[in-house]
Amino acid sequence: MNPVHPAHSRVLVPAGPDDLRVPVTRVALTNGETFDRYCTTGPGSDPEVGLPALRTPWLDARGDTAAYDGRPTALLDDGRAALRRGAASAAWRGTARRPRRASEGRAVTQMAYARRGLVTPEMRYAAAREGCDVELVRSELAAGRAIIPLNVNHPEAEPMVIGRRFLVKVNANIGNSAVTSSVAEEVEKLTWAVTWGADTVMDLSTGDDIHTTREWILRNSPVPIGTVPVYQALEKVDGEADRLSWEVYRDTVVEQCEQGVDYMTVHAGVLLRHVPLTAARVTGIVSRGGSIMAGWCLAHHEENFLYTHFDELCEIFAAYDVSFSLGDGLRPGSLADANDEAQLAELRTLAELTRRAWEHDVQVMVEGPGHVPLDLVEENVRLQQEWCDGAPFYTLGPLATDVAPGYDHITSAIGAATIAQHGTAMLCYVTPKEHLGLPDRDDVKTGVVTYKLAAHAADVAKGHPRARDWDDALSRARFEFRWDDQFALSLDPVTAQAFHDETLPAPAARTAHFCSMCGPKFCSMRISQDVRERFGAEEGMRRKAAEFVELGGTVYVESEAPRS
Amino acid sequence: MNPVHPAHSRVLVPAGPDDLRVPVTRVALTNGETFDRYCTTGPGSDPEVGLPALRTPWLDARGDTAAYDGRPTALLDDGRAALRRGAASAAWRGTARRPRRASEGRAVTQMAYARRGLVTPEMRYAAAREGCDVELVRSELAAGRAIIPLNVNHPEAEPMVIGRRFLVKVNANIGNSAVTSSVAEEVEKLTWAVTWGADTVMDLSTGDDIHTTREWILRNSPVPIGTVPVYQALEKVDGEADRLSWEVYRDTVVEQCEQGVDYMTVHAGVLLRHVPLTAARVTGIVSRGGSIMAGWCLAHHEENFLYTHFDELCEIFAAYDVSFSLGDGLRPGSLADANDEAQLAELRTLAELTRRAWEHDVQVMVEGPGHVPLDLVEENVRLQQEWCDGAPFYTLGPLATDVAPGYDHITSAIGAATIAQHGTAMLCYVTPKEHLGLPDRDDVKTGVVTYKLAAHAADVAKGHPRARDWDDALSRARFEFRWDDQFALSLDPVTAQAFHDETLPAPAARTAHFCSMCGPKFCSMRISQDVRERFGAEEGMRRKAAEFVELGGTVYVESEAPRS
Repeated sequence: MNPVHPAHSRVLVPAGPDDLRVPVTRVALTNGETFDRYCTTGPGSDPEVGLPALRTPWLDARGDTAAYDGRPTALLDDGRAALRRGAASAAWRGTARRPRRASEGRAVTQMAYARRGLVTPEMRYAAAREGCDVELVRSELAAGRAIIPLNVNHPEAEPMVIGRRFLVKVNANIGNSAVTSSVAEEVEKLTWAVTWGADTVMDLSTGDDIHTTREWILRNSPVPIGTVPVYQALEKVDGEADRLSWEVYRDTVVEQCEQGVDYMTVHAGVLLRHVPLTAARVTGIVSRGGSIMAGWCLAHHEENFLYTHFDELCEIFAAYDVSFSLGDGLRPGSLADANDEAQLAELRTLAELTRRAWEHDVQVMVEGPGHVPLDLVEENVRLQQEWCDGAPFYTLGPLATDVAPGYDHITSAIGAATIAQHGTAMLCYVTPKEHLGLPDRDDVKTGVVTYKLAAHAADVAKGHPRARDWDDALSRARFEFRWDDQFALSLDPVTAQAFHDETLPAPAARTAHFCSMCGPKFCSMRISQDVRERFGAEEGMRRKAAEFVELGGTVYVESEAPRS
Repeated sequence: MNPVHPAHSRVLVPAGPDDLRVPVTRVALTNGETFDRYCTTGPGSDPEVGLPALRTPWLDARGDTAAYDGRPTALLDDGRAALRRGAASAAWRGTARRPRRASEGRAVTQMAYARRGLVTPEMRYAAAREGCDVELVRSELAAGRAIIPLNVNHPEAEPMVIGRRFLVKVNANIGNSAVTSSVAEEVEKLTWAVTWGADTVMDLSTGDDIHTTREWILRNSPVPIGTVPVYQALEKVDGEADRLSWEVYRDTVVEQCEQGVDYMTVHAGVLLRHVPLTAARVTGIVSRGGSIMAGWCLAHHEENFLYTHFDELCEIFAAYDVSFSLGDGLRPGSLADANDEAQLAELRTLAELTRRAWEHDVQVMVEGPGHVPLDLVEENVRLQQEWCDGAPFYTLGPLATDVAPGYDHITSAIGAATIAQHGTAMLCYVTPKEHLGLPDRDDVKTGVVTYKLAAHAADVAKGHPRARDWDDALSRARFEFRWDDQFALSLDPVTAQAFHDETLPAPAARTAHFCSMCGPKFCSMRISQDVRERFGAEEGMRRKAAEFVELGGTVYVESEAPRS
């Protein structure tokens, strides 16, 4: 993988007493210093081969899982087109492993280990990346307030932790739809998303080659992968929601567990009795999975099979350490519908399901909205945290206004930064194409960068240790006119440098004490530096400042401060 | 001026008992309804001719101002290049009026009228645009909690009100710098900015033809124009801050008052004793005007002449009804410097100056930061409102993180929405080029649109009457697949439609019940509508919902709800 800036390199730094090492993006500055940033890129892979299986030695050492033959694959796993053609269009030819699952009677989730007081390499790895004590990770996992989403069949992934005590994480959605698709494009989007900092990626494919696309993605993903299994289940029944059944769904879940999906969105909180609550809404049901399950409930006039079979689902998830992302199928799709009874009734059900999953040692996060006016944002995270006993909250934005399609990465980043500041653990990105079309490569980058900056703003606001160091390093580079360092430290060095060079492309401008925004004479930072010099260096100014504060900050007294 | 969408038209709607009419952007919807939006575009002008003088009859009718010969113009008003050339490069050839000012002993500011209990056409115009009672405007003006920035020499402008009880306003900065410039480009940027919704525009030119550029801008501007007079004053002394003086500054202010500048940023709060407080900062002084005045204070070891001559300045402003925008010359330029003693010491001085200006009936707003972590944003507006007795707050963002140059329209929109929600009255936009270069046409649009959405999000959060109607209208269009209405109602119809048409360009797609984001089968809104239909229309659903609520919202009871 090519770094996004020549001053960047992926470095493995030792973490703890043994040979565990975790990745950072090291930024080499022109003043000889370095600055380390959280790194999500992974070591890079040949897409045809896949990534090395980082965690296999740890899994083997625990000895509580065993390989087995797995579910027989079927052509229908790749959708009806594959069935017609007799093959998926781009079969995976890289490493293939037999799936593994928990041995009889063994509890293999990170939550189970944490509750037993065990510290796993996964916990140590995640803690080292956060720069926190591993005991914080273990205790938060044990309490259900954090998760490490890692399927035993996705050994390529680098462990990371999601919880309100940790850095706010960002998810990027990729995946083909029936309108446009290609396996290679989706792998490319995955790599592109992690290059810009996506902490997890959800594969929301609904089109052809759905099984095979996921295989390519998993084998190349250094970050946890999430899915919404009902999308594939629906493909298996010709897109007719009425024909969905627990059996088809269960088969799909097992298929995905064996492939290595780390977390799955399950809309088990859309209950039959909740559906009528959406009748008077401005925008009804806007979750795809939610609308599918609502349709099923009404067609059969039966309770949601995901709810009635929830314990069985927990048993499956526990065997592979798949985490729940409890879907908010009734989330508001407009400001008008925010925090309404449909949304809150579902949230109460999700709280009940959280506790049931925990009885199985299954890790859980809870999904949240959507579209919420700023004055109602905090209530969303407060209620979720209270009702769900602190299970990590994972929100889609929320959008703070409905009026700006084409800019919904921004309308939602406003809501996202606010809700993260108040305790949301992971943010699902929104791209500029939201509500309008399928995001392309540029949209994926814009979405990830926008959400990384929102997440970072929340980390700073929460007082996360070390978070502001990054801002300070960049601001120092800015004040000292180290333009190359300013670019290298930027969330997106490529764009920062391109914008600067548009008007001042000459190499000399990269050390100039101004930019084209204000020009040389009006550069406040240059003048401010001149002011310092003429005032006789910082020391003299510091002395004056100290005098000022001593005197109660109100009176200025003449003194022997040097003047030029 | 061409509307941005074929369904948009500028309509003048009657406001009150006489023939006063105010502009709205009327959106014609495909279902026969219309939706009116706040309109900033003005009637449109031929740049060479300028706009009609809307307010001249009102000014004449009051009879408290008189025309006079005005200050003699000088070649140096257009900078040293004009001096060399012997002429400005593009002299204004449109309407030229003799300047007017208050007749001896008359108080002609909107604040003065409001305090005397007078309701002016300007107040009625602004109130009609807000959709509020004019008494609210008058009483807020009288209390200093709102301003109507309108120089008697800018009769082309359409009155608008800035204050926390009113819609949050957005300012766009334009203006050439020494590195790049052109008169025509700046007028074009002005028109472009108001097309997208800028409520005021600041001309921050520092390069050549500074007087003439401003003339073109004022004569073509339907919105209030702000400036920072010290920029031009500095040009008049060859860019040498030490040579600045009250006399040069005063001359520049009178020149700009006579042209019609509506509000001026004055860095009178940068006191000599404050400067040392910036010594230990990460980014020193980042306001251009602030750094110029700090340099002057230190070079002369004298108190800031803007502070010592403040009452004289008030007298000048009062004669033309120019409003103060009290500059925050010591605002933080990085998260590290936010809410520090330098910033707060200056704010205390600005509070003092606010009260002094009010003694002269001069309208005041107070400028604010800058760069502020989200957890400190609310404190900024709270302290400003307390200390400055509710004078309107006008902030630059603030940026919620320093790490994303190239995306600072977004990092700052996050802070801007938050600070506006808590009571900031006007937001100064930040473009993607902030910190990197001079914004071009695309950047101006991106900045304005981003800030309009932030301002609107705050209006909704503050519960401003009617604000959410816009969101609801768009969301209804979205849910009903009225794509053309969704585009027409969008803050930026052009971008919304372009994004949609990228993947689905066929005309049929504009009535399709899906888009390429999810494809037809997975469109939640389509499924949700199907669900409603199959459940036997909304009425049945509503009945179920009512039952549910009656039963305490917890138990589902079988009933005879129709099924398809």
